[in-house]
Amino acid sequence: MIKGRVKGKVWSSRHVGTLPPGALLEVETEAGGRIIAFDPLGCDDEEAVMVTQGSVAAAYFNGKNAPVDALIIGSIDENTKQKS
Amino acid sequence: MIKGRVKGKVWSSRHVGTLPPGALLEVETEAGGRIIAFDPLGCDDEEAVMVTQGSVAAAYFNGKNAPVDALIIGSIDENTKQKS
Amino acid sequence: MIKGRVKGKVWSSRHVGTLPPGALLEVETEAGGRIIAFDPLGCDDEEAVMVTQGSVAAAYFNGKNAPVDALIIGSIDENTKQKS
Amino acid sequence: MIKGRVKGKVWSSRHVGTLPPGALLEVETEAGGRIIAFDPLGCDDEEAVMVTQGSVAAAYFNGKNAPVDALIIGSIDENTKQKS
Amino acid sequence: MIKGRVKGKVWSSRHVGTLPPGALLEVETEAGGRIIAFDPLGCDDEEAVMVTQGSVAAAYFNGKNAPVDALIIGSIDENTKQKS
Repeated sequence: MIKGRVKGKVWSSRHVGTLPPGALLEVETEAGGRIIAFDPLGCDDEEAVMVTQGSVAAAYFNGKNAPVDALIIGSIDENTKQKS
Repeated sequence: MIKGRVKGKVWSSRHVGTLPPGALLEVETEAGGRIIAFDPLGCDDEEAVMVTQGSVAAAYFNGKNAPVDALIIGSIDENTKQKS
Repeated sequence: MIKGRVKGKVWSSRHVGTLPPGALLEVETEAGGRIIAFDPLGCDDEEAVMVTQGSVAAAYFNGKNAPVDALIIGSIDENTKQKS
Repeated sequence: MIKGRVKGKVWSSRHVGTLPPGALLEVETEAGGRIIAFDPLGCDDEEAVMVTQGSVAAAYFNGKNAPVDALIIGSIDENTKQKS
Repeated sequence: MIKGRVKGKVWSSRHVGTLPPGALLEVETEAGGRIIAFDPLGCDDEEAVMVTQGSVAAAYFNGKNAPVDALIIGSIDENTKQKS
């Protein structure tokens, strides 16, 4: 997975029918790039998130052939780094 | 997914038989690279699009073993960014 | 696979329900990037590890659709390089 | 898919038994890197080609577990760009 | 596939149980990076090899869920480049 930070929503009125309903967030990765990830958690802008990529992301939608190759799988606890 | 912008069509008269009929568009990614993506939506030149990659793109063609590793899944609404 | 070095844990109180219970470690790759990998081995901080990526990592969880795209599969023996 | 240009053949007398018989071509990608792709089309040296990657490439060989992660799926028509 | 050159073995006494027995080699890729690949061919140090990556590499182990995302599939004939 990679770490990233939410940078707003992406809106797509015209899309393929197999795209699951839900939020698509723009995420800035640690390396400085940007990806669009599906968000099943309701994350906020600037929230630190963990993103999984590839067919693993699509598998979250249980055999529905969702064309999703990036999925937010968790919000990262930012004030607890000292626990590690 | 990644964001990109359509930069013309790619024509391939000689191709493998399993390539689905339809448009292949050249897409410039946000990072500045170029990929060729299958377009099921009829996107225009310079349109902002969202591209999914890998086996997730091929799965769109329902078990037909389509050799497609990049698929345009949506057109990005460009004048609505303030909604986020 | 790629080589990396463990750089602490990642905590995520709010995550998708299909994330398997277990440690998520931040790993610095040889190339200098950072990824988050699931650790089934109980690795220590600064330990040298071998990470597998993509759907191969998820397959470790036997058909449970685990949204894990990076898995530590071994600890690298660091004082035995002369064996090669 | 990515665009590339054929830069000669690769010969491998000693290889795994599951490698399908056929040509392996060295392809220079648009980004300047080099990959080795399986060529089912009989492409010539310096020909412009379209390459698909990952498990999508292996799926071309219909369940034979071919260890092929890059496949030339088409020759690009170079004198027809004005059609787009 | 990518070209690479063998740069020694990697030893991992403590690893997941599903890692198939066999040699893990460090391979320097043409682009200058390093990956660890499973070697079913018994390659020598400094040998030029062809590596396949991703789930295609794991499929070589026939449904055993091997956590291997890089596999040496052939040794490259180095003195025969003029054949191309």
